[in-house]
Amino acid sequence: MNNFYALIMAGGGGTRLWPLSRKTRPKQMLSLVEEQRTMFQVSVERLSPLMEPDYIFVVTGREHVERLSQSVPQVPVENFIVEPFGQDSGPAAALGTLHIQHRDPDAVIAVLTADHHIADQPKFRRVLSAAGELASREYIVTLGISPSFPSTGFGYIKRGEELAQIDGFQTYHSAGFTEKPDPDTAVQFLTTGLYSWNSGMFIWKAYQVLSEFARQQPTMYALLEEIKRAIGSDSYRETLDRLWPSMKKLSIDYAVMEGAKDVAVIPVDIGWSDVGSWATLFEVLAGDLNGNVSRGRGQEHIKIDTRETLVVSNRMVVTIGIEDIVIVDTDDVLLVCHRDRSQDVRQVVGKLKESGDEIHL
Amino acid sequence: MNNFYALIMAGGGGTRLWPLSRKTRPKQMLSLVEEQRTMFQVSVERLSPLMEPDYIFVVTGREHVERLSQSVPQVPVENFIVEPFGQDSGPAAALGTLHIQHRDPDAVIAVLTADHHIADQPKFRRVLSAAGELASREYIVTLGISPSFPSTGFGYIKRGEELAQIDGFQTYHSAGFTEKPDPDTAVQFLTTGLYSWNSGMFIWKAYQVLSEFARQQPTMYALLEEIKRAIGSDSYRETLDRLWPSMKKLSIDYAVMEGAKDVAVIPVDIGWSDVGSWATLFEVLAGDLNGNVSRGRGQEHIKIDTRETLVVSNRMVVTIGIEDIVIVDTDDVLLVCHRDRSQDVRQVVGKLKESGDEIHL
Repeated sequence: MNNFYALIMAGGGGTRLWPLSRKTRPKQMLSLVEEQRTMFQVSVERLSPLMEPDYIFVVTGREHVERLSQSVPQVPVENFIVEPFGQDSGPAAALGTLHIQHRDPDAVIAVLTADHHIADQPKFRRVLSAAGELASREYIVTLGISPSFPSTGFGYIKRGEELAQIDGFQTYHSAGFTEKPDPDTAVQFLTTGLYSWNSGMFIWKAYQVLSEFARQQPTMYALLEEIKRAIGSDSYRETLDRLWPSMKKLSIDYAVMEGAKDVAVIPVDIGWSDVGSWATLFEVLAGDLNGNVSRGRGQEHIKIDTRETLVVSNRMVVTIGIEDIVIVDTDDVLLVCHRDRSQDVRQVVGKLKESGDEIHL
Repeated sequence: MNNFYALIMAGGGGTRLWPLSRKTRPKQMLSLVEEQRTMFQVSVERLSPLMEPDYIFVVTGREHVERLSQSVPQVPVENFIVEPFGQDSGPAAALGTLHIQHRDPDAVIAVLTADHHIADQPKFRRVLSAAGELASREYIVTLGISPSFPSTGFGYIKRGEELAQIDGFQTYHSAGFTEKPDPDTAVQFLTTGLYSWNSGMFIWKAYQVLSEFARQQPTMYALLEEIKRAIGSDSYRETLDRLWPSMKKLSIDYAVMEGAKDVAVIPVDIGWSDVGSWATLFEVLAGDLNGNVSRGRGQEHIKIDTRETLVVSNRMVVTIGIEDIVIVDTDDVLLVCHRDRSQDVRQVVGKLKESGDEIHL
């Protein structure tokens, strides 16, 4: 399949792994799961047996593009598509799709994330391949993650009637997307066995998703059309900068997926994690005999009676008599947090935003 | 009493408050109990209503003398007596005593520590005064701290027959010093009501304690005599450096106190603490409503569900969902320790010594 492209969405500036992730150093730039490679590098490299680097496109912010492109020299710099500023995933995915379509009007595109962990990479590539095949048959495909617990932190996709089986993967019509559920609903979802987590990974034909934009988001589509005409011309940058502020800030789910026709889902278990909190990162990493994990350059962790403790630091850390603690030690902020409370890092980030503390954000 | 002098023993390089206290920055140089003044400055200044700064002498190591003397400009620089290197408290106290005796053959000297906390300073000065009076009557006086719990970390002094009551303080003959007891013995000591902690504070007439050296430590005394003759001469430094290595490394307790005649004890409760561990420091400091204490320059401690936690840091520290934790954040080492385990810091220091890690000691 030589019309199969990847579009890696690397614009995010999430702060859920604060204080390590910052506005200027988002999660995809961190080397956490692997010590030598950033999550973005891993996201690019795990595609390599599936497609040539030349087929990998990246959407990101102007402030990140240089660092990201230098970190994956195998990907041509012209494959980096710049958003003038973040407008959520809808406009970003559409912009990337336009560029790939400009190169290949027949393109099938896998829209992927830059900061998620996938343990089973061979299976991930196989299911992507199957999804590409299904997308060629004019389905907008979503990868549905088999839920391992009744999470209230993800949206869900319900499977409908069976579609083809491709390369061992059973595919389904989508019976609809749902928002993040309350705890009871999440338990029901798991019980039925019909729901998957919405991973944010979609596989579509360029023209098909753009016609969904035309149908569901006509105002946005008009702007996209104007941008599309400017691609490759001298006026591209000026056109983009002028029109971008008028884009509606919408997630791709809201913008088109929830209302799209011919949506399919492939439920799959690929050891996926969004690494959405320190506790989630902790689960992904292999600990020592006492469940301790240490990360960092030149890090020395001296442990006395220490269990289930995550240390992220670039210097000597001594822990004595502690358990279930996350320690994140950055240049200007130190976080010491109970493992079960790592979601509350958001509260702190919220307070810093309120108080206008840009230095620590 | 215009022959009453203080001799502050400021040579120690203890690492019990590691990683904040280091070889090059011993405990007496830290500002922990008070945020603006070091423990050494406090030790000097709490004497001021009792004696002129000119009557305060300090024994310390060559590497510390400049910094210490600059921190208490009111004390004449010539009152700083340098040990070439540490030989424990016996030789240091004897050397200081020689110098004070050189200035005032009739001197009564209060030998004091530089890194202990005393909550009730007026009472401390009153008991020192009383002890000076008793020392004038030819007793070698020890201040005995009324024990608040059966500590196994201190030596004890047993009181014997009653001596005079001076200024409201009942004084006693000493019935002997004991080493650090085992837990059962410590409980027995408390039950009898006859034992006090050995605070390391002694009050003596110069000539009287020097005759104890002459009687109990004749070899050391011969060296002391030779050093004494050189005081004030050009050959002093050379003489001291030459003889000092031959001094026996002995605590003052071993050297003379345990075998001395006419030892008296004044049991007293002055809110004394040796600040011998992070937990002990914690007890001395006043916490917020949740028992949290923060220390450090420009420190900002953001607390979510945090209780009984001590933070020593010069930057932003965020704690979430933790209790009874000590966090000590220095330039090159971070310590996170359960409050009840702060004694185990010694283990770490021991390991660093074994591995020859001078950088972190």
